[in-house]
Amino acid sequence: MSKPLIDKGLIIVISAPSGAGKSTICRRLLAACPEIEFSVSYTSRTPRPNEIDGKDYYFISRDDFQRRIDEGEFVEWVENYGHFYGTSVNAINDVLNQGKDLLLDIEPRGAKAIKKQFPDAVFVFVLPPDTDELMKRLEKRGHESQEAIKTRFSQANSELKEVLWYEYSIFNENLETAVQQMISIYRAEKCKTNRLHGKIDRIFKLY
Amino acid sequence: MSKPLIDKGLIIVISAPSGAGKSTICRRLLAACPEIEFSVSYTSRTPRPNEIDGKDYYFISRDDFQRRIDEGEFVEWVENYGHFYGTSVNAINDVLNQGKDLLLDIEPRGAKAIKKQFPDAVFVFVLPPDTDELMKRLEKRGHESQEAIKTRFSQANSELKEVLWYEYSIFNENLETAVQQMISIYRAEKCKTNRLHGKIDRIFKLY
Repeated sequence: MSKPLIDKGLIIVISAPSGAGKSTICRRLLAACPEIEFSVSYTSRTPRPNEIDGKDYYFISRDDFQRRIDEGEFVEWVENYGHFYGTSVNAINDVLNQGKDLLLDIEPRGAKAIKKQFPDAVFVFVLPPDTDELMKRLEKRGHESQEAIKTRFSQANSELKEVLWYEYSIFNENLETAVQQMISIYRAEKCKTNRLHGKIDRIFKLY
Repeated sequence: MSKPLIDKGLIIVISAPSGAGKSTICRRLLAACPEIEFSVSYTSRTPRPNEIDGKDYYFISRDDFQRRIDEGEFVEWVENYGHFYGTSVNAINDVLNQGKDLLLDIEPRGAKAIKKQFPDAVFVFVLPPDTDELMKRLEKRGHESQEAIKTRFSQANSELKEVLWYEYSIFNENLETAVQQMISIYRAEKCKTNRLHGKIDRIFKLY
C-alpha cells in the first residue's frame, strides 16, 4: 500500500485536446462538488475580454514570469504560441495542506511534471467522440483564424496519444454522461483505502 | 500499464462484516446499473424461507459440493458454521467473456482467492459507522440466538482488519451516500484507460 495521505487533499488533473469539451466538464465538476478548488495558473498572455485576473489566470508580465521560473516557483510551465503558462507549487501545497481537493486543467506536458512531483494525483484525459466532431467544435470557437485552427487540430492529433499514460479516459460523446463520469472518478478516488487511513485508524480504535 | 481487458467484463468484489449494510448496497447498485450481473454462489446449506434457488444461491447437497471441490470447479470456497459456500470459476468466465460486468458478494478469504485468479477485479470493503451501530444492526436481524450474534460480532471485528488490502472503502454512515459511492466506484472503474484499449484503438484509427 502506498504512503497514506492523511489529512491531505486530492489533486485531480484533467487534460484534453482543444475542443474536446474539457472546460465545460471542469465547470460542471466544480459546480457539483463545491469542496474542490480550481487551480489558477499564471500566464504572460493578455486576458481575453471575458477573463478575470485571479479567477481564469493570474496575468503577469513576461519579465515577472521569467523571474518566477528562475526562482523555481513553477512545478510545471510551458511556452505556447509565444506565451508562458505555469502552475505554482506553493499554491498547490497551500490547498492540499488545508485538506482541500484541487482541480488542475493542464496540458499533457504539464500533467507529466505534476505526476513526478505529486504521484498520488489522479489523471483524467477527455477524448473527443471523433475527428469530424472535433473539427466542428474547433471551428465553432470563432475567434481564431483558419491557420490557428489547423495548428490546433494538428496539436490535438498528437496530444491524443498522451491518453495512454492517463489512468482515466472520458469519451465526451454525450456531455451529461461525460460529466457524470468525471464526478464518479472524483467520488471513487475519495473512497480509495490509501486516502482514508486517518478515518480507518479511528474505526480500529473503537474495537 | 497492465494487460488491456479488451471486450472483457469487469469483476467487482464487495465484502463487509455482517450487519454493515452490504446486501442493500449490492441491491441498489444492481438496480442503478442493470448491465451488471450478480454472481450466484453455490452453498450446501438449506434455503431460508424467502430464498430462491438460482437467484440467492445454487442450493446443492454436501456430497455434490464436495465432488465439485475435488473437480476444481470453485475459484474460492469456504466452510462457515458447518456449511459450504463457493464461487464457480466457469460461471465467472462465462459472464466476462460476454463482455458483461459481474458483482461478487463474498467474504475476505474468498475475495483474496478471486484477487489471485482475477488481479484486475475491483475490491470494495463496506465499513459500519461504529461498533454500537453494528451491534444494533446485528441484533435487529432477529432470527439468530444471542450466542450466534456474539460469534458474528467477534468475526466482524477481525474481518474489519481486512479492509487494509481492499482498494476501496465505503463507510456506511448514510445509506444514500454509501450507495452513491458504490455506483461511482463502478462508473470510475469503467473509465480506467487500461480497460478501454479497444475503444481507444478505434479512435486512433480515425487520425
